[in-house]
Amino acid sequence: MNSWDESPGSETDGNNKENQPETSHNKSRLLSEPWKPCRQPRAAVKEWQLKLRSCLGTVCGMQWYGYAALGVLTAILSFIMDLSVTKLLRAHQWLYMKLEGHIVLQFFCWTLYPACLCSFASSFSHNICPFSTGSGIPEVRTMLAGAEMPHYLSLTNMFAKFLGLICTLAAGSTVFLGKVGPFVHLSTMLGAYLSKLCSLIQANKKERAADEMLVVAAAVGVASCFGAPISGVLFSVEVMTSHFAVRHYCPCFFSAACGAATFRLLSVWSGDGETLQALFKTNFPTAVPFYPLEVLLFAFLGLLCGVVCCLYLFCHRWILHFTKTKPVFIRMLTTEKGLYSGIVVFFLASLTFPHSAGQFMASKFTMKQLLTSLLDNGSWSSQSHNASVQVEPLLGWSSSGTPVYVSLAVFLLMKMWMLVLACTLPLPAGYFMPVFVYGAAIGRLLGEGVAYISSAGESSDQQWASINPGGYALAGAAAFSGAVTHTLSPVLVAVELTGQFSHAVPILLATLLANGLARSGHRPSFYDALSISKRLPHLPSLKKACPRLPSTPVGRVLGVKSVQLQKAAGPAEVQNAVSSTDTQIPVVESHESQVLLGFVLRPELLMFLRRCEAESLEKRLDEVCCIHPTSVLLSPHSTVQETLSLLSLVGAQTLFVADRGRLLGRITWSEMKRILEDLAKEI
Amino acid sequence: MNSWDESPGSETDGNNKENQPETSHNKSRLLSEPWKPCRQPRAAVKEWQLKLRSCLGTVCGMQWYGYAALGVLTAILSFIMDLSVTKLLRAHQWLYMKLEGHIVLQFFCWTLYPACLCSFASSFSHNICPFSTGSGIPEVRTMLAGAEMPHYLSLTNMFAKFLGLICTLAAGSTVFLGKVGPFVHLSTMLGAYLSKLCSLIQANKKERAADEMLVVAAAVGVASCFGAPISGVLFSVEVMTSHFAVRHYCPCFFSAACGAATFRLLSVWSGDGETLQALFKTNFPTAVPFYPLEVLLFAFLGLLCGVVCCLYLFCHRWILHFTKTKPVFIRMLTTEKGLYSGIVVFFLASLTFPHSAGQFMASKFTMKQLLTSLLDNGSWSSQSHNASVQVEPLLGWSSSGTPVYVSLAVFLLMKMWMLVLACTLPLPAGYFMPVFVYGAAIGRLLGEGVAYISSAGESSDQQWASINPGGYALAGAAAFSGAVTHTLSPVLVAVELTGQFSHAVPILLATLLANGLARSGHRPSFYDALSISKRLPHLPSLKKACPRLPSTPVGRVLGVKSVQLQKAAGPAEVQNAVSSTDTQIPVVESHESQVLLGFVLRPELLMFLRRCEAESLEKRLDEVCCIHPTSVLLSPHSTVQETLSLLSLVGAQTLFVADRGRLLGRITWSEMKRILEDLAKEI
Repeated sequence: MNSWDESPGSETDGNNKENQPETSHNKSRLLSEPWKPCRQPRAAVKEWQLKLRSCLGTVCGMQWYGYAALGVLTAILSFIMDLSVTKLLRAHQWLYMKLEGHIVLQFFCWTLYPACLCSFASSFSHNICPFSTGSGIPEVRTMLAGAEMPHYLSLTNMFAKFLGLICTLAAGSTVFLGKVGPFVHLSTMLGAYLSKLCSLIQANKKERAADEMLVVAAAVGVASCFGAPISGVLFSVEVMTSHFAVRHYCPCFFSAACGAATFRLLSVWSGDGETLQALFKTNFPTAVPFYPLEVLLFAFLGLLCGVVCCLYLFCHRWILHFTKTKPVFIRMLTTEKGLYSGIVVFFLASLTFPHSAGQFMASKFTMKQLLTSLLDNGSWSSQSHNASVQVEPLLGWSSSGTPVYVSLAVFLLMKMWMLVLACTLPLPAGYFMPVFVYGAAIGRLLGEGVAYISSAGESSDQQWASINPGGYALAGAAAFSGAVTHTLSPVLVAVELTGQFSHAVPILLATLLANGLARSGHRPSFYDALSISKRLPHLPSLKKACPRLPSTPVGRVLGVKSVQLQKAAGPAEVQNAVSSTDTQIPVVESHESQVLLGFVLRPELLMFLRRCEAESLEKRLDEVCCIHPTSVLLSPHSTVQETLSLLSLVGAQTLFVADRGRLLGRITWSEMKRILEDLAKEI
Repeated sequence: MNSWDESPGSETDGNNKENQPETSHNKSRLLSEPWKPCRQPRAAVKEWQLKLRSCLGTVCGMQWYGYAALGVLTAILSFIMDLSVTKLLRAHQWLYMKLEGHIVLQFFCWTLYPACLCSFASSFSHNICPFSTGSGIPEVRTMLAGAEMPHYLSLTNMFAKFLGLICTLAAGSTVFLGKVGPFVHLSTMLGAYLSKLCSLIQANKKERAADEMLVVAAAVGVASCFGAPISGVLFSVEVMTSHFAVRHYCPCFFSAACGAATFRLLSVWSGDGETLQALFKTNFPTAVPFYPLEVLLFAFLGLLCGVVCCLYLFCHRWILHFTKTKPVFIRMLTTEKGLYSGIVVFFLASLTFPHSAGQFMASKFTMKQLLTSLLDNGSWSSQSHNASVQVEPLLGWSSSGTPVYVSLAVFLLMKMWMLVLACTLPLPAGYFMPVFVYGAAIGRLLGEGVAYISSAGESSDQQWASINPGGYALAGAAAFSGAVTHTLSPVLVAVELTGQFSHAVPILLATLLANGLARSGHRPSFYDALSISKRLPHLPSLKKACPRLPSTPVGRVLGVKSVQLQKAAGPAEVQNAVSSTDTQIPVVESHESQVLLGFVLRPELLMFLRRCEAESLEKRLDEVCCIHPTSVLLSPHSTVQETLSLLSLVGAQTLFVADRGRLLGRITWSEMKRILEDLAKEI
């Protein structure tokens, strides 16, 4: 990449030569590179690249093509993944149907298929790239907060995560895991790669553009997953960041719209749908979607979801702690990942076997079918009275003649701990969709109950006869998933997935109340718990675990003082300073007074050395180099929180800490990462 | 308010006494106040207040009650306003109908009614509170950026703005002005008042809570206006701020949901609707809302809206400049506001008179009817072939038998300059709804054209026969209003107003393209142009007018150095420092060295003086007072932009500027306001 920029004869070099003949001469001598193969074709490619750049640049900036490409590519990835998963699921169903009558064979087919897939996903991702397991959202938001974690953005990781996720999803509703989290991670990796490509073509504004691309990629990941551009962007904003720059709105929405349009067009062209419709299209009655007094029931549903969410998060934190402390689990999860996944999934699958407990929890449905059936707009209780119009969703939920209430209750009770157990599986998996479906089941149970009671008292109150349990399911889904992730945008996700805006206000109300309960008492969200358990350098999560943490004064955690130069430094001292890897080297009045004057950049020091060498003179630093002033200074009493915000706000790579004008140390991103990791250990 | 907190015997005072007996003794002697009336009832009220606080505080923080109250009150205000406006409009229509047959009387009824109303609104708001004219959004966002403008938040202003706005809206589609902007201002004033009430009950965290309440109030204003909580919050975020803290999301949505629910419940109870439905409910066909290839037409519509928006914004900037430079306008707009409004509105009304040019631009419709008719889902061109099913919207648009294309084209041409002219009226008025309706008309014209062409070629391509021009109108409305305000959230506004999610993706696409065109070349948005023209201290707008501005080094614009103390200062010097109004006074090593040590707070200096007085000793400052360290220091090379971000980020009231440890000056919010106002003059 570097050789590209510095190839001789490029425009910028030409300009430099005219302006600063002497410096440039030195530079080109230093940069004189060894012989390169294919100089001729390289020059041709370079020329074409310049032509292409100027041609594309006339319409809009290069990064916009990057955003569009990101959206389209992510959508294609998402589509390929959906297609493969559907094929694998259908193969499983086909095999299961073929074995009808042989119950033992059916049992092994039902259990071994997902167990093998998950075992493969675990071993594969462990062997190819161990960073590819889990959701990825905690890591992505740590990166967006500024920490550099290059091994999480490699293409190998992307490959491992993509294949692993297909296997996980193909295991179906047995393991009950989703797609969103890993997909955000996938699109971030794609974004990082595209931003490298863009900066290669553009050759300027590297740092800023890369950051922006990551923000956009995180948004696009969610959007492409559902084909829902608006809620995707907003969900990603809420989960990923604590401060959002409104100037990122346009790129995010642009890329997400490209992604969503591609995703839906692909499904139209593949024959799934006639037009660009919502993914889980519902047909709620629009004339009177609900009665004003039902708002109270929605509020109750919100509180219920909040309580269940607290229970779920408690269990999740407990099991995270448990697997970190029990030696047998630690050993299993570090060395025998494949075996562990296989055993757990076999256990889960044997429970959901349709001829055993599975018949009470609609285990034949895939995740999509589960959600579609729960969002169905008719009331099942009224349908079950009337046997002639038995429709598909009801058939799935009361296959053996059990009342739907029992099925729903069993589903809720069993899936709670099964989901918690599934969260320990070391494979690429998302945890948003399961809680979304779980919440829909809570809402459906309440809605069916209300519909039953209202139809029982039909004679007394005619008005309440047409209550729609699907609306409660939708509200429950948004409220529960919102409470688990501590976000409000699942409201919009729910609305955009179903294309049903009529219920927006009650859904929002339920989600607000559920969030209020889930956030009370400084409880960490699902992703916060993961961040804390993985000891990621992510301040907002650490804050949840230990609220005093961000107010630690930075002077207390400052590392050893790195290299510095005095104003009158000679070549020997500069030579010493250059050997360090810092890009900004502080300059002080003298080593005794330590009064900070500013900083010099490393390339300038190299230039200084070369000049001294060329002219064989003992020059002083301040005679040759320009000392850049620092715009913001930290004092040792600044808190870690302030320091972090300054670092991301000022956009500088280095902040200097000084007390009464005297240099004490410096803070860089890597230094900050070390500080946060140290703080995480203290918890 | 202060007397409340400091009344003897309160809990906090008691605690203070236990901890610091001596200091508290001094304090209470200093604060010994003159006799107050009704000491007994006051104590009773205080006790009740404490009981209420502890009772409410058990459920959630006091500020949440404030947010709920804000939402509910704003919704009630909005409802009262809508009710009054409807009555006034109906009175006008009734009078006009009664005069049927007397064309001269009808003309005077048509013209004088709105002219008198607007003239009254202008004079009234000018005389009661001159700050109540205009949209209010530029001022509100300046306040949200940190500048203090207390006269914009007074209750008098609220009263004047409320009455003035009713008159403006009652003038109807003749003046073609809206409600959103002033309503945001109204709710901000209400929010400021409620936050005072809250802090009075809570008695802590004043600064932070007040800021948060303003952010919430701005969001609630938009939400209550439309009964659209989600888009209201997002629109306000986009327009008002450049960085948004995600922790404000919950309060904003909570308050907006309360407001929207109240607003809709009020309209249900008043008999307008049966349930909590969208305001401009549409019934687009849901099976096939549009064909994939129509996406290209939506993209073209977006570009078209972008071009028209550039023209509109150019005209608007031109007229703002024109009215600021022509002496006759300046005199009219400063002294004879009522007369000016009357003349302009009379002129506009005489043009829209239904027996003259008004018949070609559906001037009998109110703003709401205009929007409803434009969003109608049938194609007018196919209806007009078939005279038996003439429906209401079509009747309004082709009253005299003119084709709808001509009516729409005349409407677009005339309303463009009429709206620009109406923007100069000095009365409380919003500019969002007019551009929304205007955009809908652009979209409708294109949609009708497409529907006509496709129905002409019906035999060749059956599939295109069922094109829905209503969808184009919706996309046009979102794209044009988004381009004018440089925001994307009108997409959600459009979706939420109509409850129609099926068109989300093409609407988003059109809005993105329109925005891209409108923002190209660093053109200011509508609100930016207003900010610049009013010389408000709002940096993001100033940046649009002069991109170099924010990188002005702060050392260049620093004011005269204010008071400072040396470490060894005696009572005389401290006495001098206390006479200034600063709350944080910098302390330097000595007046010669100027090395900054930190700062002391004003109350501490008062204490120091009292102690010196009491003990009759000559003490030194550093012997008695604690010198607080500064956490962040600015250098004179920091840019104005950085300084402003630091000021809002660190949450400090004062930032000190130092060069090599030596104090150069300080930046406070009022200093910042002065700097920005000075910079605005340079443009």
